[in-house]
Amino acid sequence: MNYESFKYSSEDGVGHLVLNKGEDLNKMTMNFWYELPRILDEIDRDASLRVLILSSTGKHFCAGMDLKNFGTLGSDSEKKTNVPDKARIGENLYRVAKELQDMLSKLEKLRIPVLAGIQGGCIGGGLDLVTAADMRFASKDAFFCIQEVNIGMAADIGTLQRLPRVIPEGKVRELAYTGRRMPAEEALDAGLVNKVYESHEEMVSGLKEMAAVIASKSPLAVYGTKAILNFSRDHTIAEGLEYNALWSGAMLPQEDMAEAMMSNMEKRDPEFQDMQEIKDYGKSSAK
Amino acid sequence: MNYESFKYSSEDGVGHLVLNKGEDLNKMTMNFWYELPRILDEIDRDASLRVLILSSTGKHFCAGMDLKNFGTLGSDSEKKTNVPDKARIGENLYRVAKELQDMLSKLEKLRIPVLAGIQGGCIGGGLDLVTAADMRFASKDAFFCIQEVNIGMAADIGTLQRLPRVIPEGKVRELAYTGRRMPAEEALDAGLVNKVYESHEEMVSGLKEMAAVIASKSPLAVYGTKAILNFSRDHTIAEGLEYNALWSGAMLPQEDMAEAMMSNMEKRDPEFQDMQEIKDYGKSSAK
Amino acid sequence: MNYESFKYSSEDGVGHLVLNKGEDLNKMTMNFWYELPRILDEIDRDASLRVLILSSTGKHFCAGMDLKNFGTLGSDSEKKTNVPDKARIGENLYRVAKELQDMLSKLEKLRIPVLAGIQGGCIGGGLDLVTAADMRFASKDAFFCIQEVNIGMAADIGTLQRLPRVIPEGKVRELAYTGRRMPAEEALDAGLVNKVYESHEEMVSGLKEMAAVIASKSPLAVYGTKAILNFSRDHTIAEGLEYNALWSGAMLPQEDMAEAMMSNMEKRDPEFQDMQEIKDYGKSSAK
Amino acid sequence: MNYESFKYSSEDGVGHLVLNKGEDLNKMTMNFWYELPRILDEIDRDASLRVLILSSTGKHFCAGMDLKNFGTLGSDSEKKTNVPDKARIGENLYRVAKELQDMLSKLEKLRIPVLAGIQGGCIGGGLDLVTAADMRFASKDAFFCIQEVNIGMAADIGTLQRLPRVIPEGKVRELAYTGRRMPAEEALDAGLVNKVYESHEEMVSGLKEMAAVIASKSPLAVYGTKAILNFSRDHTIAEGLEYNALWSGAMLPQEDMAEAMMSNMEKRDPEFQDMQEIKDYGKSSAK
Amino acid sequence: MNYESFKYSSEDGVGHLVLNKGEDLNKMTMNFWYELPRILDEIDRDASLRVLILSSTGKHFCAGMDLKNFGTLGSDSEKKTNVPDKARIGENLYRVAKELQDMLSKLEKLRIPVLAGIQGGCIGGGLDLVTAADMRFASKDAFFCIQEVNIGMAADIGTLQRLPRVIPEGKVRELAYTGRRMPAEEALDAGLVNKVYESHEEMVSGLKEMAAVIASKSPLAVYGTKAILNFSRDHTIAEGLEYNALWSGAMLPQEDMAEAMMSNMEKRDPEFQDMQEIKDYGKSSAK
Amino acid sequence: MNYESFKYSSEDGVGHLVLNKGEDLNKMTMNFWYELPRILDEIDRDASLRVLILSSTGKHFCAGMDLKNFGTLGSDSEKKTNVPDKARIGENLYRVAKELQDMLSKLEKLRIPVLAGIQGGCIGGGLDLVTAADMRFASKDAFFCIQEVNIGMAADIGTLQRLPRVIPEGKVRELAYTGRRMPAEEALDAGLVNKVYESHEEMVSGLKEMAAVIASKSPLAVYGTKAILNFSRDHTIAEGLEYNALWSGAMLPQEDMAEAMMSNMEKRDPEFQDMQEIKDYGKSSAK
Repeated sequence: MNYESFKYSSEDGVGHLVLNKGEDLNKMTMNFWYELPRILDEIDRDASLRVLILSSTGKHFCAGMDLKNFGTLGSDSEKKTNVPDKARIGENLYRVAKELQDMLSKLEKLRIPVLAGIQGGCIGGGLDLVTAADMRFASKDAFFCIQEVNIGMAADIGTLQRLPRVIPEGKVRELAYTGRRMPAEEALDAGLVNKVYESHEEMVSGLKEMAAVIASKSPLAVYGTKAILNFSRDHTIAEGLEYNALWSGAMLPQEDMAEAMMSNMEKRDPEFQDMQEIKDYGKSSAK
Repeated sequence: MNYESFKYSSEDGVGHLVLNKGEDLNKMTMNFWYELPRILDEIDRDASLRVLILSSTGKHFCAGMDLKNFGTLGSDSEKKTNVPDKARIGENLYRVAKELQDMLSKLEKLRIPVLAGIQGGCIGGGLDLVTAADMRFASKDAFFCIQEVNIGMAADIGTLQRLPRVIPEGKVRELAYTGRRMPAEEALDAGLVNKVYESHEEMVSGLKEMAAVIASKSPLAVYGTKAILNFSRDHTIAEGLEYNALWSGAMLPQEDMAEAMMSNMEKRDPEFQDMQEIKDYGKSSAK
Repeated sequence: MNYESFKYSSEDGVGHLVLNKGEDLNKMTMNFWYELPRILDEIDRDASLRVLILSSTGKHFCAGMDLKNFGTLGSDSEKKTNVPDKARIGENLYRVAKELQDMLSKLEKLRIPVLAGIQGGCIGGGLDLVTAADMRFASKDAFFCIQEVNIGMAADIGTLQRLPRVIPEGKVRELAYTGRRMPAEEALDAGLVNKVYESHEEMVSGLKEMAAVIASKSPLAVYGTKAILNFSRDHTIAEGLEYNALWSGAMLPQEDMAEAMMSNMEKRDPEFQDMQEIKDYGKSSAK
Repeated sequence: MNYESFKYSSEDGVGHLVLNKGEDLNKMTMNFWYELPRILDEIDRDASLRVLILSSTGKHFCAGMDLKNFGTLGSDSEKKTNVPDKARIGENLYRVAKELQDMLSKLEKLRIPVLAGIQGGCIGGGLDLVTAADMRFASKDAFFCIQEVNIGMAADIGTLQRLPRVIPEGKVRELAYTGRRMPAEEALDAGLVNKVYESHEEMVSGLKEMAAVIASKSPLAVYGTKAILNFSRDHTIAEGLEYNALWSGAMLPQEDMAEAMMSNMEKRDPEFQDMQEIKDYGKSSAK
Repeated sequence: MNYESFKYSSEDGVGHLVLNKGEDLNKMTMNFWYELPRILDEIDRDASLRVLILSSTGKHFCAGMDLKNFGTLGSDSEKKTNVPDKARIGENLYRVAKELQDMLSKLEKLRIPVLAGIQGGCIGGGLDLVTAADMRFASKDAFFCIQEVNIGMAADIGTLQRLPRVIPEGKVRELAYTGRRMPAEEALDAGLVNKVYESHEEMVSGLKEMAAVIASKSPLAVYGTKAILNFSRDHTIAEGLEYNALWSGAMLPQEDMAEAMMSNMEKRDPEFQDMQEIKDYGKSSAK
Repeated sequence: MNYESFKYSSEDGVGHLVLNKGEDLNKMTMNFWYELPRILDEIDRDASLRVLILSSTGKHFCAGMDLKNFGTLGSDSEKKTNVPDKARIGENLYRVAKELQDMLSKLEKLRIPVLAGIQGGCIGGGLDLVTAADMRFASKDAFFCIQEVNIGMAADIGTLQRLPRVIPEGKVRELAYTGRRMPAEEALDAGLVNKVYESHEEMVSGLKEMAAVIASKSPLAVYGTKAILNFSRDHTIAEGLEYNALWSGAMLPQEDMAEAMMSNMEKRDPEFQDMQEIKDYGKSSAK
């Protein structure tokens, strides 16, 4: 795994994905969007992982979409002579928005929890990105901004869906209509971040501690918890319960429960088997 | 536009609707309900507007339903000789509740955001009203009360649907079952209001400032943001994303984005074209 | 009504259900699960009740599932010779989870509000239990724990569905993935409990006061409020409004409203008729 | 009630609305769209009506949208100098489609059933129109056509939503992608029409007979049946049942049931009271 | 199992429930409603059963609700002196409708398929009953009638929800608004019944043959098929697929699949183990 | 594009995908599942295509899942020494079912309509496959079979979700519980296939004719029609309408409508521009 916009490493079941273009404000360039889904697919297929830390470098966590990307929207770069009509531009705008959304949603659909650590600005697309994480943490210099309204458009890759599940709706609307910055402390009060740290270093070290705790649990228990929370958020209580019961029918890890109890009695740390390796169905036979 | 229960004015894209019966506690009289939908329809059709302030006069923001209205429920005033049967009374109660709900929902469906400023009591129907606004602000003497349980009925025109999206559910239930008053500070903590002001004057002036900020944005960006937030609140994350992408296909305002960037480079305020005039379809040809 | 795991009494429309195995940490034993649905059915059928207090005894409110229960899961105790296959174990796990969920959901579906008072630990199944109550209160020594992840499984009887409706999602995920304890004060800030009391005694006496207020209201108004809040939580705003209007068509208690207004004018406490007796349909004729 | 595109009359609780521009193929002109919602509102407010027949004149039932209407789409006729941008055109197209949809949906939301009788072509918008009726009948020369694909667009005012609830999905897709005509007999087999008549006259007389039967029933029973069928089509079985039970709570017409049984015993026709008069809430007080 | 309104027997995994009051037109009396849920609970708990036949005796399959039942609706028989108010009557009507619905829904929720065989009239509540079965069959003298509209009310215990999933909507509305009888052949064309038999005897013998086929399959495969069809009917394609995959995770019967393949190779009938015994959770420990 | 299990060609906007292992009954082997998603992705990205024909070779259209595939389910082939526990097997079964479902759903999500032509047996997974097409056609020797119940399992890759939208529910259940074969004529009556042809050759030639008609329409009109039908099938009427209006805002092809009308006036075939080329977002910059 060798990427340009990201740095990736893993240890003891904890993956660590770092936005690596701090000098360029970690803007979401074409390269960023090319690499992100590929790296997340690799992570999802790595059965040894149990939790992912997402952090960044430089002054700002992420300055949002690289404005150069908008230049190509709606145009069909390879046959420039044809000016596309309104409907075909509309189709292009719709399709690209869906593609970008799908890339961010990969974060939400990972089998493992994602802990995002934010310093400096978390702007526009950067906010779309971290709302797709499981939890957010901030250093005290962090701020959050729904930048889209400031550049003349409605946000369209996740913030308007996910933020209102996390902070009070009146607050979301204020941020979304005015485009003002919300500092770390206000984000903590509002429930957007779980904790504010003094510095970036303390934050990363705090995330590693929490990640280690999560990595010590049964991976099936954690995977199930995440999948059920995701499903239940989008369904009625009754539907969530039904899904949860069926999940237990499929994946209640009786062996892991035995190990948890046994290790507790024996006053040792439990050791849980990894999840099964994820293969691309049919791949081997096709060779 | 000349109304009895309301005063209305607009300037620089900011509409200002004021409950104008302060001496009568701004009770929701028959006249109030007659005028409200008509004035909101006019506002929605005014393409020059970009944001609406809703405020009030007198000691209390709104004392709720005028109890005289209940007198006519279920009875058919013009053929008094016939005592209607239970089923026909039921049909009447159902229909009137729906009509009143529809009037308040107009606030939510306006193309522009609504900022409500509340002083004194915001009681019963008054609370139903402001929960249909985008954001709420209060002066420090304000209080909120789900009055319906105190007069022997379950609230039925919006509070029980919208309040739990805004403040914690346990708090909603306490207020709804006990009918107690929640003061401004508690409302701020709970997330019902975005800010508490020292006085009514400061509040109105604060709302005007925020309204001016919103009015300076692309009206299509703000309209889209509101419409998408409303839709996404009622749908799954995936459905909200799909809707959002399609909205971008239809209404991503590339011209407004260009103006936003250009004005930023030229260090001047952007100027965005109004939305298109809203006409009643078919009206002209019918003359 | 004579139970082993519970103590039950009622007075002036207020039922009081107490977990009665404090010496055994109020673990959810087979007997607990046997008695709970039966006692809740009795309570729901008692038309004289208007509110229920749920409290506990001993050091901890409830230590969660009695681990002995897990022993029988998936096995068919009476024909031990046959080791059941994976699919039949899965069916058993699914079915038992649904049964336990249904028992806890009875609390949510009671016609009357439930006020839960929590001291000490509220752990695992205990948390599932109190999230199905209308409101939660705590003494300052209380703490809450999603214990399931600590014993190697994903929670499956209600916490993952109901807790995210009550406290911010990022907080839920932290608690669910790490299994850490959340103390009373943090629970108050997060919105899980409505109030923290100095002691168990003060809490119970506080709950009785609030219960008395609720019991003084029209039972139809309170029942409607609860039913509509439950329905609206699981539906869109528009669907919730439609349901609410239809509820008013069926059960707007015009007589109770008249009594509320009359008693107010006469400066006396209102007296509302109980709801109609709940009979098991067809039972009498069958004798 | 005096209209240009329609002729309207009523007798014995049966309204009869006739498309009256047979010489012009009953195209949906601006005038058609102006008059349709107004006439349906009048009909809905007429408490003496119990059923509506919708029929037409001339060779074709309805030739669909008057293509002149498309000319004004997206343009803002009164400030022609400004060429609107893509986003503002998109907003206009979206808004107009919603307006037209709302007008047709009025048919579906009428308190009384609508029986549509179709001769000759039922094309494009004409098909959108009749799919919003409760039942469709045809003379043997009738044919149905999703004309939109033939003029280069996707249908957008109701056919794509309602037709798949009425005929098999594979058939819908064939008609929608190829734009071919479906003759009356095929429509009967597919379930789109309930019966095929030899001639227009026989059809109208058949509809009047059926309408008389429906008009002889309790208007509350028929209203409830229609409202519940509409709601249940869009919800789960469980939600439909809940709604239905609540509807009975509100509007089970015990008096009408007594009359039905009594008249049956007395071997006479039952006589049911009309529904309550529908007034525009608040209107009287506003005068 | 000894019942008055029903006769019940079982053999080789096939249960047979017979409406046993043919001389009284199998009206749904208080006794019928008392016994039905109890017998269905017993059947659901019998792990040896794999399919249920529901048939009847006498001239008519079922004449619907015993009108005597309506007499007690809304009244509180034991304190007759108090005339209940409108809201309390409404509550009673709502609650009773829900209770009756729940009893019929038990048929739909049984773990095993239900094959209903209908002779003569299937009227009112009788139709509500059989629409909750998996499949319907008829002898040629059978007819179906939504009787409710003929007695002045809207159907409220299942027909309006389930029938439109089975036959074309236009047909449902005609039957529901006019109350006319639909004969067996029309019911076959419409899809309400799967097959029409010459006589009651041939029908019962045909049902037994089909039941034997179903009983020869893996009980987990059949249970899963029914549960997934029920769930998928009420959800989107995507939700149905997700549920289905999770069901396979829990209950894909690999042992039964092996037996199916093995028996096929060995040219013998497969033998599948019964499902696990269904016990009332906690019951044993409570003794 | 060079595949082993399939043969693919295209001409004049019509793609033709052929199952190419007739000698092996077109069983769904590992290679089939490897190639299918890849070929469908290529087709979806080919902006010159407007419709797809899916047909087969040999005696049977498709004999369903290659039973060899089941052998590896739940096992982790590369570390055979570890017997996985029940929960990890359950996770594997769940994940593989989802993967297979996703591959078939690609057919449904293609931007272009899919016409499936079926000869001989369409068994198990083959039926799952064709229910994901837009329309189905058959030669008279064709038959359909929900084979899963015959091999001891519940179908899990699409038939139980999609078939009940296409044929009457009672019929689905009969086929699903008994595993019997439904011949072509019955499938035609039930609505599963649109037409039955005398022979495979006539069928393929008939499909080509219909495909040519569809290919002559505006590709945006056809794409929109398919996308809106898919969305509307899974949502309420009101939601479908909203989506449809927004789609028109984004993609009402005014240019194509002009061409349609112009070519009609000029009595020539219309010529519609292809849709915009579909690129993998970010791919170019990443090189």
